[in-house]
This record gives sequence, C-alpha cells and structure tokens, in this order.
Amino acid sequence: MPKNALYAQSGGVTAVINASAWGVIEAVRGHPAHFGSCLAARNGLLGVLGEELLDLEEEDPLTLAALRHTPGGAFGSCRYDLGTLEEHRAQYERLVEVFHAHDIGYFFYNGGGGSMDTAHKVAQIGREMGYPITSVGVPKTIDNDLGCTDTSPGFGSAAKFIATVVREASLDVESAHTSSTQVFIMEVMGRHAGWLAAAAALAQEYDGRPPMLILFPEVPFDQAAFLHQLQMAIDTHGYCVVVASEGLKTPDGSLFAVAETSDVYAHIQLGGVAPRLAELIRQEAGYKLHWSVVDYVQRAARHLASRVDVEQAYAVGRAAVEGVVAGEHSFMPVIRRDSSRPYRWSVDHAPLDRVASIERGLPTRFISPDGYGITAACRAYLRPLIEGEDFPPFEGGLPCYPRLRGVLRPQRCPPMSFSDL
Amino acid sequence: MPKNALYAQSGGVTAVINASAWGVIEAVRGHPAHFGSCLAARNGLLGVLGEELLDLEEEDPLTLAALRHTPGGAFGSCRYDLGTLEEHRAQYERLVEVFHAHDIGYFFYNGGGGSMDTAHKVAQIGREMGYPITSVGVPKTIDNDLGCTDTSPGFGSAAKFIATVVREASLDVESAHTSSTQVFIMEVMGRHAGWLAAAAALAQEYDGRPPMLILFPEVPFDQAAFLHQLQMAIDTHGYCVVVASEGLKTPDGSLFAVAETSDVYAHIQLGGVAPRLAELIRQEAGYKLHWSVVDYVQRAARHLASRVDVEQAYAVGRAAVEGVVAGEHSFMPVIRRDSSRPYRWSVDHAPLDRVASIERGLPTRFISPDGYGITAACRAYLRPLIEGEDFPPFEGGLPCYPRLRGVLRPQRCPPMSFSDL
Repeated sequence: MPKNALYAQSGGVTAVINASAWGVIEAVRGHPAHFGSCLAARNGLLGVLGEELLDLEEEDPLTLAALRHTPGGAFGSCRYDLGTLEEHRAQYERLVEVFHAHDIGYFFYNGGGGSMDTAHKVAQIGREMGYPITSVGVPKTIDNDLGCTDTSPGFGSAAKFIATVVREASLDVESAHTSSTQVFIMEVMGRHAGWLAAAAALAQEYDGRPPMLILFPEVPFDQAAFLHQLQMAIDTHGYCVVVASEGLKTPDGSLFAVAETSDVYAHIQLGGVAPRLAELIRQEAGYKLHWSVVDYVQRAARHLASRVDVEQAYAVGRAAVEGVVAGEHSFMPVIRRDSSRPYRWSVDHAPLDRVASIERGLPTRFISPDGYGITAACRAYLRPLIEGEDFPPFEGGLPCYPRLRGVLRPQRCPPMSFSDL
Repeated sequence: MPKNALYAQSGGVTAVINASAWGVIEAVRGHPAHFGSCLAARNGLLGVLGEELLDLEEEDPLTLAALRHTPGGAFGSCRYDLGTLEEHRAQYERLVEVFHAHDIGYFFYNGGGGSMDTAHKVAQIGREMGYPITSVGVPKTIDNDLGCTDTSPGFGSAAKFIATVVREASLDVESAHTSSTQVFIMEVMGRHAGWLAAAAALAQEYDGRPPMLILFPEVPFDQAAFLHQLQMAIDTHGYCVVVASEGLKTPDGSLFAVAETSDVYAHIQLGGVAPRLAELIRQEAGYKLHWSVVDYVQRAARHLASRVDVEQAYAVGRAAVEGVVAGEHSFMPVIRRDSSRPYRWSVDHAPLDRVASIERGLPTRFISPDGYGITAACRAYLRPLIEGEDFPPFEGGLPCYPRLRGVLRPQRCPPMSFSDL
C-alpha cells in the first residue's frame, strides 16, 4: 500500500505559492502507484504538530485547480521554528506520531530558507528515529534570497508588480511636479537583500527615467550623499522618485527604521523607512513629497503575476514530486537558467542542507558604481523573470479567488498542547 | 476660419484622465468645420499663462491614441488657483493675450471641483472682457466627490484597484495569522469623502469577510469603540483587516494624522493614518501588525483599470466637445445612472457654477449603522463602477505607456513672470 503525501506551506506567502501547491497535488495524484492520498497541513508545521490535516478529497476539483491563480496561502502558513532533535525531541516524536497515524511517508514543505532548514530536520527523522519519511522542500520567497537557485517562485510576480506601480506612480508624480509633489518615495520589501528594490529599476524606460534613486540594504545609507543626489535629480528632472528597501541600513550597520522586534525566527519586523526618509527630506530640503509603503500588497498581487513566475512555481511543485518518484530525497527543486536571451530555464535539484545554509544577497556587480541603481548585468538577470501575464479570472470586476472547504481528517492521535513540546 | 481648441489637465491626475484627453482630441478633430487645431497646455493653467502650448499635430497618431490606456497626466497638470477677476485682473488679461495669440476659442479644462471653478472663471472672460471664449469642464477625480454627477472618471479604477489589493492582501494575512500578523491596516485616499474607503468593502465575498473594519472620514474616530471592534473581529476571525481613510477625523473634527499644510488650494496634505493607527494598536492591544499606505499607486494603477471607468472617461471628453458643437457652453458633462441592474449610464450636462459649489460626501445611508462598513445600497451603487477590465498592452512584462514628444508651439506673446500676475 503506498504511503500518503503531506503538503504544507510555511513563512510569508506569495502570489504564486498556491501554484506550487497545485503542482504538488496534481503530480502526487498522477502517481497512484507511488502515493496514497495527498493531504495538506493547516498552517504549516503547526498543523502537523496539532494534527490538523486537510482532506483534499473533500475539495471541489475546480477549486483545487484554481489554486494556480489564487494568492495567499490557501492551506494556511506559519512561522514556526522546529528546534534541534537533541534539544526538542518531543517535537520530533509528535511528528512521528502524526505521520504514523495518517500513514504519511512523504512530506513536501513549501517555504523559504528557514523552512528548508525545517524540511531538512524533518528528513532526519528517518535516520535518527527510524520512521521512514521522505522530506522535500519546495522553494518560495519574494525576497529572492534562497541559495542554489537562479530565482525563487514569488519573486518574479512581486518584482513585476513593483516595477509596474513605480512606472505608473512616476507618471503621476511627473505630471504635476511643477506645482505639487516633487519627491515620491516608495518602500519595498526585502529584509536582507535588495532584489525587490533592484526590480523597481525595470520601470525605467531608459537612463534617467524614474526611479532615479534606489536605496539598497547592501549599500549603507549616507545621508549627506543621498540628499546631494536628490538635489541633483530634482535639478535635472524637476522631481525625484526614490525606491527604498525596508532593509536599508545606516553606516554603523543598524536598520534605518525598525518597527518591532518579535518574531519566532528572531526576524525583525521592518517598515517605516519611507515615512522616515520623508521626514528627513522635509526637514533638510523642504520638498513637497508623498510616500508609499505597499507592504503585503506587493507579495499578494496575483492580479499582476508574472507568467514565468507562475510557471516556475507550478514546475517546482511538480518537480518535487517527480524527484521523489525517481527515488530522491532531502532536496529542493531549483530553477536553473539555461539562457537569458532568449530566456530558457529548467528545474534542477539542490540538497536541503546546502540550501538552508545560504542566504543570497544582491551581488555587488548588480549594483551601479554610484550605489543608487542597477547594472546592465542585473537588468539582464531580472528582465526575464517578470515576463508574460497570467491574469486570474475576474467576476464582477474583481479577481476570483475561490476558497477551499478545508475539511479536516478525523484526528487519531491524543490531543497535544504546544506547551508540552 | 474656425477657432482652435485648447485642452488642459488640472489637479491630482488619475489612471484614466488621459482617456478623457483622447476623447476631447479625437472629437475636436472630428469636427473640422467647427474647430481649428486641437492644442494642449503644458501643466494645465500654468502652461496657458506661461504660453507653453503643445502642438498635437507633431505627435505620432498612435501615441495619441495610446492616451486611452496611459495613466498620469500626459500633458502635465498643476495645482493653481485662478483668483477672482476683480482682484487678479492681470491673470485674466494674460489669458486673453495667450488665447488671442493662438486663436483659441474653446477651452476644455479636465479636473476636479477646484478646476471646475477655474473653468467657470475662464468662461467669464467672454462676458466681462469681451474676448469670445467657450469654456467647458471635463470631470475627473478619484475622490468621487464632484457634484451633479453619479460618479467621476478616475474613481472606478482606483476603487477597483483598492478592492482587489485588499482582497489579495487579506488572503495573505489570513494565511499566517495564527503565528504571525493579526492586524493589517491599509490606508486609502479620499480627502473629505469616504468613497474610496467604501470601495474597499467590495473585496468582501460575503458578510464577515475582510475588510472587517472601515474607518470613514464621515464617522468621527472613537478610539475605545474601535479597539473594542478590533478585539471582537480578532476573537471571531483570528485576524482583522482595517481600511482607513486618509481623511479620518477625531471627535473634535481635527484630522487624525496631518503630514503637511502647504498647498495652493489650502488643501492639507494627508498621510500617515495607517502608521498612527498601528502605533495605537501596538500600544493598547499589542497585536502583531502590518500596515500599508498605497498613496499614488492607487490613483495611477492603470494596469487594473475599470472598463466602465475608462469608457466613461473617454465619453465625458467626447461629450464636452459634442456639447460645444451643439452650441452649449459653461457646462461639465456628467454621468447619469439610468439603471443599476443591469448597469446603464448616459452622459448629461451640468452648469459649471453648480458643479463648482458642491462637494459630495459619502451619504449617511451608505454607511452601515455601526459605522464600520457599507450598506447594501452603497454596494449596489459601487459595484457597476468597477466592472470590466481594460488591460493596457504589455511589453517585456510591463505595461506600455508611450510618451508624447511634447513639441511646443512657437511663443507669440511677450514673456511673462508669474510674479507679475
């Protein structure tokens, strides 16, 4: 009797993570000799520990297929750090208990770097605890900072949205700069890596077009130099569009703006770079300005997904399953770039432990010498990732994102309290 | 010899104001017996006073036709308040000088309430100064606060964008609320009227779906009541999505958040309601939260325009010209709703002086009794306005917004300094 497969989502979700889910589900169902049912955990690893497992047989097939165009995490996601086996053995025992009760032999964990570490730890259960489980990672992150892969599903769509709205808002600012707003600041996500900030440069039709200044986390913020650049841009164009990463740092390495400091991964919640820059510019230079913080909007904007990104998200989901069928384990499917012009890509595999240990920043050679823009090499890298549209169906003027019924399988394990773990 | 027509844009631009421009230009060109050339002022009234008039014969016809799908103000806009004829006669004399030098007999001013007042003042030139000029307004505003019209071009597209991204971001928040963000606040524009905030409610699939709480400028902000409602929403749903208008007011009538106070119309520049609400919630309730201020992005988002809105923007441009051909003057074309289900509309006319004197807030009967949502009547009003998509062409993954060449006609008047006016 083939074992069941369990799919779960983790970390900050993206506009296309559900396309990966659909890739996994569809591929699992395509191999009935290899897999039993395909289940999904509610809220990622929390749902596994809490034995909240969704029975996907109860879902309308059309709703499942619509996962391909539905943003957010349809099964629920979580931020939960699985401790080490040595120090948190109870967590692992609970996982084995739940896996065993539901005859789960395959675990597909869809997330970013931290989640790949979790998937790697789950893979240890087989070796260390004698319960046979094949654990595989499925990549996602809008930050594009996952190692071993040319890009991460979720990034291309966020990049496309950012470049689009920067282009649009810039036309707005340009329209009335002679008598109204002269400086527009847009803050984008990207905790440690400037990939999303870099993507804003794709809005430029040619040199000198907005955004004029990009502030990367990789380039320490020099206030005097920035104000000088701003002045020069306004002298030249009459206005200035600035894109700033939430991860912008001061020369001493601390964050330019910090909102809050609590998070299980010890991540610092950022936000507020744009209003702080606005305050600085207002005080030091006195320009009339507007600022925008798009926040979750940029990572949820499925209405403007990149077709390439959707296809890659779906492909890594499928590839995770196909790799397992081919006998592999403890890997994450990665995107390999075979050619930039024309853009050609394929799916390769990387070992989970290697992926989990790498965080990929924007390389120096992708940042222009003045530190406020991107190089031709960066542009050549980014451009294919936002290619193509994949509009969701619309109904009544709004995108149609059907919801799963979310039927839980009957619980078979004793109830558990998280405080016991 | 027919006189030339002059088109100009004013105030905050929208995703579809250029569709109105194209409506005017195309219609003027369709009546060669009535009009000479169609010119456009650079930067609205400032360009008229400064004699910066664009020769549209120099533009590629394809670029002109692309105005239909290009956001921002392609000719440049302005915030400039024309004084009264009694007190600022020099301004009016300069207008006559420029009109006369370029044989302009028709003035089409595309803007909001303040601009309709300007168009009305320009219309006085004929009566008071003996220079024959027909002045007509063309409506636009994302705020939807223009009087005498069922809706204003620009609103429907901003409303559609807001409802879409609130729906998308809400799916994101919902995904991980058990272990991450519980409160998401999105700030929307709407200086004095809650129309755009109300539009966010269209994101709701049915009762109880996000956004759970909407904060209107029309409803004084009661901190304790709000925190109570927030708590109830989190108790019920586990998370809460809040949409707040930039024009939110405290019970004493002052603005909840004020950024700056300089503007020629004496408008107060708003912004920062979301981070201030976030700070309040953090201090008083301690929830983990995220906030977003989309700012200009919402009014420039042509990539997601409402088809109805684009058609209406184009139609009011055409109707302004057709009305003139039929012998009318000093009017603004307005949208009349002939039926809500099915939605049917037509274009009517309203006198400029009446339009300029009315500012239309969200009626009380459109706000739900608890003050945090909209009524069925409001939903029935809003729904048709976001109907249909009208995606711009994309190239290389981004919307294609061609630029005008912007060739100025040779100046024929003596140079002028604004300080003389």
